Amino acid sequence: MIQGRDVVTLETFSPEELRFVLDRAKDMKRDGHGTPLQGRALAMVFFNPSLRTRASFAIAFSSLGGTVVDLTAERDIWNLELREGAVMAGVAEEHAKDAARVLSEYADAIAIRSLARHDDWATERRDLVLVSFQKHASVPLFNMESVLEHPCQAWGDALTLEEEFGDLRGKKLALTWVYSPNARPLAVPHAVGIMAAKMGMQLTICHPEGYELDHGALDVVHRTAAETGGTVRVTNDLTEATTGAHAVYAASWGSTNLHGRPDEERHLRSRHTERRITADLMARTQSGRFLHSMPIRRNVEADDAVIDASSSLVIRQAGNRLHIQRALFAEVLA
Amino acid sequence: MIQGRDVVTLETFSPEELRFVLDRAKDMKRDGHGTPLQGRALAMVFFNPSLRTRASFAIAFSSLGGTVVDLTAERDIWNLELREGAVMAGVAEEHAKDAARVLSEYADAIAIRSLARHDDWATERRDLVLVSFQKHASVPLFNMESVLEHPCQAWGDALTLEEEFGDLRGKKLALTWVYSPNARPLAVPHAVGIMAAKMGMQLTICHPEGYELDHGALDVVHRTAAETGGTVRVTNDLTEATTGAHAVYAASWGSTNLHGRPDEERHLRSRHTERRITADLMARTQSGRFLHSMPIRRNVEADDAVIDASSSLVIRQAGNRLHIQRALFAEVLA
Amino acid sequence: MIQGRDVVTLETFSPEELRFVLDRAKDMKRDGHGTPLQGRALAMVFFNPSLRTRASFAIAFSSLGGTVVDLTAERDIWNLELREGAVMAGVAEEHAKDAARVLSEYADAIAIRSLARHDDWATERRDLVLVSFQKHASVPLFNMESVLEHPCQAWGDALTLEEEFGDLRGKKLALTWVYSPNARPLAVPHAVGIMAAKMGMQLTICHPEGYELDHGALDVVHRTAAETGGTVRVTNDLTEATTGAHAVYAASWGSTNLHGRPDEERHLRSRHTERRITADLMARTQSGRFLHSMPIRRNVEADDAVIDASSSLVIRQAGNRLHIQRALFAEVLA
Repeated sequence: MIQGRDVVTLETFSPEELRFVLDRAKDMKRDGHGTPLQGRALAMVFFNPSLRTRASFAIAFSSLGGTVVDLTAERDIWNLELREGAVMAGVAEEHAKDAARVLSEYADAIAIRSLARHDDWATERRDLVLVSFQKHASVPLFNMESVLEHPCQAWGDALTLEEEFGDLRGKKLALTWVYSPNARPLAVPHAVGIMAAKMGMQLTICHPEGYELDHGALDVVHRTAAETGGTVRVTNDLTEATTGAHAVYAASWGSTNLHGRPDEERHLRSRHTERRITADLMARTQSGRFLHSMPIRRNVEADDAVIDASSSLVIRQAGNRLHIQRALFAEVLA
Repeated sequence: MIQGRDVVTLETFSPEELRFVLDRAKDMKRDGHGTPLQGRALAMVFFNPSLRTRASFAIAFSSLGGTVVDLTAERDIWNLELREGAVMAGVAEEHAKDAARVLSEYADAIAIRSLARHDDWATERRDLVLVSFQKHASVPLFNMESVLEHPCQAWGDALTLEEEFGDLRGKKLALTWVYSPNARPLAVPHAVGIMAAKMGMQLTICHPEGYELDHGALDVVHRTAAETGGTVRVTNDLTEATTGAHAVYAASWGSTNLHGRPDEERHLRSRHTERRITADLMARTQSGRFLHSMPIRRNVEADDAVIDASSSLVIRQAGNRLHIQRALFAEVLA
Repeated sequence: MIQGRDVVTLETFSPEELRFVLDRAKDMKRDGHGTPLQGRALAMVFFNPSLRTRASFAIAFSSLGGTVVDLTAERDIWNLELREGAVMAGVAEEHAKDAARVLSEYADAIAIRSLARHDDWATERRDLVLVSFQKHASVPLFNMESVLEHPCQAWGDALTLEEEFGDLRGKKLALTWVYSPNARPLAVPHAVGIMAAKMGMQLTICHPEGYELDHGALDVVHRTAAETGGTVRVTNDLTEATTGAHAVYAASWGSTNLHGRPDEERHLRSRHTERRITADLMARTQSGRFLHSMPIRRNVEADDAVIDASSSLVIRQAGNRLHIQRALFAEVLA
């Protein structure tokens, strides 16, 4: 059903396709899996560090019998040129399109992590490294988190939520901005928003003024919800957002308006240090499930009492990435 | 016999368990091994560099059919918080307990290398990274060298010594401090001391004043020797220590008293540049076997003539780590 | 036919042996391959970064069923001492011979990348890291590019050329220096020169004055051509070199005369910015095939129109490294 597809954004997968992969992941989690990828190879390319993603992608692929080669920018990858037709007399020693084409000769799939690298959001949001690899790779491309999207994270989150609630239609998810000293990427909130809309959930997005999601991603969320019967509400009020929710998904992200202006961003951010998920807030929810994509700053983003509660799903979320990625690899490379 | 056990220190293994693993390693070295770890995964986490350990752990695990993912601090691992209940508003972006719990979702075992990171020995000797991972990981933990211990090194050394001498009870081992310009970790001398005591050897520990082993590790050595019928003697005199020994194990380590005060440590150390294993010293031994855990500074820690003698065991020691680790993986994950 | 051999330079392989490996690579590319290296391990040691080589070596070995451990200098490898008999009281913490001997205990083959590290060419050209590993490793050694040679690159290039032209005897290859802002290693032009001579090609080497190949490598090229019936011509004139050629192999390399004097080298180099392969130049050739070992600076070393032409072989060259290396691993470790 998804053979040969790129997994770069949830947007391009229909609810039926999401469903299919979720069911395959559940099957494989319950019944195990063989080694259908024997003789196949995955090239993982990291332009930014990774723990969970590196470990879960590598183990998912190799546990299916495949071979993984792990390439790290700066150590292994030349400075990449992204512009078509550029005269490459500067620091870039290789064009992204050549890197993508060469890796396609060696590997049956390429997985890439590439986060922010520009000073202005208008350029940043074009996600040029990912787009260039997608355009030029001749094998399926997996997004291991880009500027805009982190599909495997949200796909695994859907699996976790379904394990708790069954059918997600009409279930209330509060996606809430919490304070962190760093401006984190927007990929997780974007992906989670699109996932919630695809699954027909009642989504509340909550953040301080100035921390709006990227307008393009938000458009996708609204448009998708309209198709699936989901709903989307945006609010600044954390108490309002969490009250009555089935699940609270905490995340911290940077201000796109102040992208590339870290001092101003830090100043705006510092006005919201109180945005933290507490046990009191969780007590107002309907089912008390807590989610976070990790790493999480304890007692800053959420209290220990929330993270370590029996209704906290954070560890299972991380674990389910293994299962969803195994299903994706098996089906895309089937 | 050791299924599901953590391999973090030799102290927690009985002489019978040490025996069992040594015999399994000998069997596997002689007869080969199948692929009993097919479908299993090992997460290796390095907070410090490694050549021998990285190569021998990775090859041991994967030659048994398993999958290895290699995670390097700074590149892959966030700054880890170690304190329970900490408000994580500083540089640490992830709590060690969350890293340990998440990796336990992906891997069937975790192996960790974590050396000195503090300024005072009282904190350092608590081996907090190792302890935190051991507490929170839900899968077996393998110590690839910590501040205090390096069990697989010493276990492999026991295999090497047995190949030479058979029963080690009563055999004389001189564990001797030698000069090196750097203050190296104490993990190897600690582990070798405990191993010698567990095997009932007659152990002489020799070092200049100020280079005493950690008092806790030394207590374990004394207590263990009392149980096994081994003996422990401590001396400052290198000639006395090596005379009549069956084997000389050279190692260089830092002064715990001067931990975190590198200039003073270097000054103390510089008074002992003559502490080097020479052919003359080896001629006073009973059986002339020379051991070192490597890397070794040639003609500083020991002369070329000693390292390259036919009775030098250094290369076989390194090789036997592969066999002992294979046996450990196979039995712990059986 | 080549069982147990080191693959450090093409010089030591006879034309019959080159032929044998090319045929094996073609067979495996067409018919696939089993997993003859199950249970075998390769230690890859990188003193310099690598994308293509790291990915293609790792995937070649592991797709044959083997296990690969990837060791990176500075991260994993101690500073290596290269001098025999040295008193190692300086920065070097391990002797290259000990590293080579230890890795030989763990792995069935060692692959090494080690580029320039000295200030004078007379020392540099001795390729001491490679030579030390070759001398002391007790398992086959594979050169993944050294100061002087890059045999697997050129062997793969021979495969690519044969796929285009069949028998290479008498075919005209123009190996042409092109401008790049950096002084690149000489390993590729040396290896390609030796390969062309071994295959009996009519080789033209073209470069500006001051960019002569290493005299020792050039001697090998001349001597080999004399044996195989090939020819070698050296010229400064790029138009003359490319006119009538069957294939143009563009490469950029540093001046050995100015090795270790980067400012002077850059100054000399900057007088040749016009040395670029254009569509006009390619139009003067006989068959228009374009080769480059990559990474390539587009529109600096060669124009987009050349690199992206249907007669450009650059991507296939990169791809064929996988096949040639698979054949080499299978036959050397047979």
